[in-house]
Amino acid sequence: MLIGGSMAFSLPFAIPALSKRTYLSASDGFEVAGARGLLSSMAICMVVGFVLRVLGRKHRGGQLFQKEAMAIVGLSWVLATILGALPFYLSGTCIQQGDPITFIEAMFESQSGFSTTGATVLTDLESPDLVPHCILFWRSWTHFLGGLGIVVLFVAILGQGSAGKAMMRAEMPGPTKEGSMPRMQATAWAFAGIYIGLNAILTLVYVLEGMSPFDGLCHAFGTMATGGFSTYNASHGQFDSSLIDYTTIGFMILAGSNFTLLYLTLLGEPRRLFKDVEFRTFIGIIVLVTGGVVFFGMRAADEDFGNFADSLRFGMFQVVSVLTTTGYGTSDFDNWNNFGRGILLLLMFVGGCAGSTGGGMKVIRHILFYKILRQEVERAHRPRVVRFIRIGGSTVDDPNLAHAIVVYFSMILAIFVVSWFLLITFEPNSTWGVTEAATTGSIDMSPDSIERIVRKNTLDEKLLDSASAVAATLNNIGPGFGVVGATRNYAGFSQGAKLLFVWLMMLGRVEVFSVLVLIIPSFWRRI
Amino acid sequence: MLIGGSMAFSLPFAIPALSKRTYLSASDGFEVAGARGLLSSMAICMVVGFVLRVLGRKHRGGQLFQKEAMAIVGLSWVLATILGALPFYLSGTCIQQGDPITFIEAMFESQSGFSTTGATVLTDLESPDLVPHCILFWRSWTHFLGGLGIVVLFVAILGQGSAGKAMMRAEMPGPTKEGSMPRMQATAWAFAGIYIGLNAILTLVYVLEGMSPFDGLCHAFGTMATGGFSTYNASHGQFDSSLIDYTTIGFMILAGSNFTLLYLTLLGEPRRLFKDVEFRTFIGIIVLVTGGVVFFGMRAADEDFGNFADSLRFGMFQVVSVLTTTGYGTSDFDNWNNFGRGILLLLMFVGGCAGSTGGGMKVIRHILFYKILRQEVERAHRPRVVRFIRIGGSTVDDPNLAHAIVVYFSMILAIFVVSWFLLITFEPNSTWGVTEAATTGSIDMSPDSIERIVRKNTLDEKLLDSASAVAATLNNIGPGFGVVGATRNYAGFSQGAKLLFVWLMMLGRVEVFSVLVLIIPSFWRRI
Repeated sequence: MLIGGSMAFSLPFAIPALSKRTYLSASDGFEVAGARGLLSSMAICMVVGFVLRVLGRKHRGGQLFQKEAMAIVGLSWVLATILGALPFYLSGTCIQQGDPITFIEAMFESQSGFSTTGATVLTDLESPDLVPHCILFWRSWTHFLGGLGIVVLFVAILGQGSAGKAMMRAEMPGPTKEGSMPRMQATAWAFAGIYIGLNAILTLVYVLEGMSPFDGLCHAFGTMATGGFSTYNASHGQFDSSLIDYTTIGFMILAGSNFTLLYLTLLGEPRRLFKDVEFRTFIGIIVLVTGGVVFFGMRAADEDFGNFADSLRFGMFQVVSVLTTTGYGTSDFDNWNNFGRGILLLLMFVGGCAGSTGGGMKVIRHILFYKILRQEVERAHRPRVVRFIRIGGSTVDDPNLAHAIVVYFSMILAIFVVSWFLLITFEPNSTWGVTEAATTGSIDMSPDSIERIVRKNTLDEKLLDSASAVAATLNNIGPGFGVVGATRNYAGFSQGAKLLFVWLMMLGRVEVFSVLVLIIPSFWRRI
Repeated sequence: MLIGGSMAFSLPFAIPALSKRTYLSASDGFEVAGARGLLSSMAICMVVGFVLRVLGRKHRGGQLFQKEAMAIVGLSWVLATILGALPFYLSGTCIQQGDPITFIEAMFESQSGFSTTGATVLTDLESPDLVPHCILFWRSWTHFLGGLGIVVLFVAILGQGSAGKAMMRAEMPGPTKEGSMPRMQATAWAFAGIYIGLNAILTLVYVLEGMSPFDGLCHAFGTMATGGFSTYNASHGQFDSSLIDYTTIGFMILAGSNFTLLYLTLLGEPRRLFKDVEFRTFIGIIVLVTGGVVFFGMRAADEDFGNFADSLRFGMFQVVSVLTTTGYGTSDFDNWNNFGRGILLLLMFVGGCAGSTGGGMKVIRHILFYKILRQEVERAHRPRVVRFIRIGGSTVDDPNLAHAIVVYFSMILAIFVVSWFLLITFEPNSTWGVTEAATTGSIDMSPDSIERIVRKNTLDEKLLDSASAVAATLNNIGPGFGVVGATRNYAGFSQGAKLLFVWLMMLGRVEVFSVLVLIIPSFWRRI
């Protein structure tokens, strides 16, 4: 932790040198403040790391129980969020002109980075007076670290959730339940190598396609971690190049695929990838949904859907971006037709493949969910027939799997509903700028009807936008609809709501349980 | 079935005589057409009943398996819907001027009645030229029959779902799993007696409070069955009497309570009712939500929330109406603030108590759902600790209960999402009258911005209205938001959407499984 932490904090100083924009900026003083913020954060991080190490030494040689393992995962995540927030806070980054970031907002940005969500509270990324360049890099760097942590910790070492585990056991050449320590370490190194390698290749490709090295690196981090932080306000739309768009689509698909299968492909077994049920479903969803989005987009003559080439490019980019939980935008999907908006909202809950850097509920869970419900309907009229669930020809023999999957769906449902309810109850209407439209413009109608239209508009937006904001943070996507739409951000929300989003991003990333237990009193008894 | 069916169809002739409005109407010719429609329906019903009886005789003495019992329940429901649709169809009832009802629409109205939903496709109930009085009575009468069927068949004889059964076994003095036939019949008679008695009392009270006998009877049927069909376009708001409103609130609460506990109360054990966890939660929800609705309604200065007395009256009425899945309206809750609208949408999924005439998912399932999720979080860090779920001091010992509950929630979620998706994909935008607002009025703005506002408005409405329409039909409530709001109805939807709603109302009423198995191919193999 000590070495990793120091290294993690030192890189953001070296890299901004790559960016020409740093030297062109008129606010060198602020750049220095940003650097000072990072330096102080690094010092604090080292002290914390040192204290933890000394404390850890006392207990060396003890055994780790499940409860303690969960406490470590959960608390490390909380600690990382707080330490990651320091650079934003100490550098005096501003969310908008004259509005320096609060600690909660800094935690939001940090959590969004580590959890590879990509939601932001920074309204103007392109003004070095508000956001220093080293901070811009720090954001993307948290994505890289988050993605690395997921690949190494959750995928290679811990496996990923019950669904992932069930798949793992059948597919993995490396770690099994009884996997030996050296073997696990080898897999972890291999996965880290693939991840870092893909990041390097993508950076190179981006630079060859015309990005600056700084932009290339930052956007490669955002893509491979399925994060979504950009260095521009217009997100990926800034580059306006179909070459870059399709490149990003390809690498987002890689990032959303099972790393175990990518590893096997590298070892010369690409058939395993293409025969995998989850991967095939994942690709099938992309093809089908893109088809629907293009069809309905062109029929409704939406913006960006003027001709087939554009429709395919913008439609597919957004579908892949949301499905893999990346959250980059090239088109303002908030202006899409209902089919487009509705299907994107649903896709938010699907997510990438298990064992990828993607968030969300994962494709495999949806496949299993469908099979389980079908089985239950059958069981309703044939209570005595016991049939096992089959995935890609092999039987899933874990009797608890079915229960774990429906419980997971129920958990996500409960968290979604409760969070939505909290938002619509406690978030003030001013976040939606209720009075704004009524006071500007020159609408020549009776005040009564104007108020009705505006009010109705706002009402609808609040219920829907809140739902999309919860979905987009819980599933680690980023943008949603309306006030959190592709061209807007989370800056307008109250501090309380931002704290709720921090919590949701954390819950989504660690797949609910590791963090949720932290707030259960009984967890802390007799530890 | 033969006798019951004939009786069921004969009453609508006798009763409209009670209504003075019949004699005042200028369209006696149409009234005769309505009567002819009912007579033809009765004849068809008798023929079908006779055929079924003859067929049934062949197999007398055979044993009934679970599969066959399910087929009987499911198919009877389909048959009842079709037979119940005949009066609407054969009488030439019109959904609006010059628009006679289609058979699908007649099935919608019939299903809405039997399932005690109360959603309607008839835009003008008060015009005898469009809706004859005997048809108006037939609608309410289907509510009465539906409620009676639920109380006798589902509550007294079959028990009600796994949650209901778990409660039943603990609470019921009458039928147990091994209950003898005479005992079951006695309970069925007792429950039918309570139900009919409450209908009679409420009719009397309504008449004493100023309703005509016809209106009193129809509204008593709508209340006790938690249906919601009214004889007026303004629903319960027509009477505009706080006395009638509070009477209705009281009887809706009774209708939403467990009939077993009402029976025990009659037997002199009211303590059992007030000590029941589900009933207490049910009352608790009403008190808390009404408090919230009144608070936020007064703060937002919504229509009908001018003073505390009005706020309490209109707020409580709507909360109880939606929670018990009745669906009567005295206030247009579509114009309420976000908290009000949001909480009503959530309440739609709660429903009444198990063993009541109310629809929805039932309060007890939500209590168990909460306890199961809490248990699962605890189990995540203590895999070896087995703890049973306790309800009101007694342990729920059924090991399959937890799984059945989360599966039920998952099922409702899946049905909700799929239906919502079908609506937003296939329902044309014209249902929301996209161009309407753009062509009327005199808005002095650039056409571009008007179109944007209108379009945005419509888009938001479609996603939300569709969700509310699915929620309102699946949970047997009736009104939703926007195009299906309290002052509007389901007439504008396409025939396909109406068929979907028929299906959803049926699914919701029989608690999913009995009807869902009918569309599974394997159900029909080797019957």
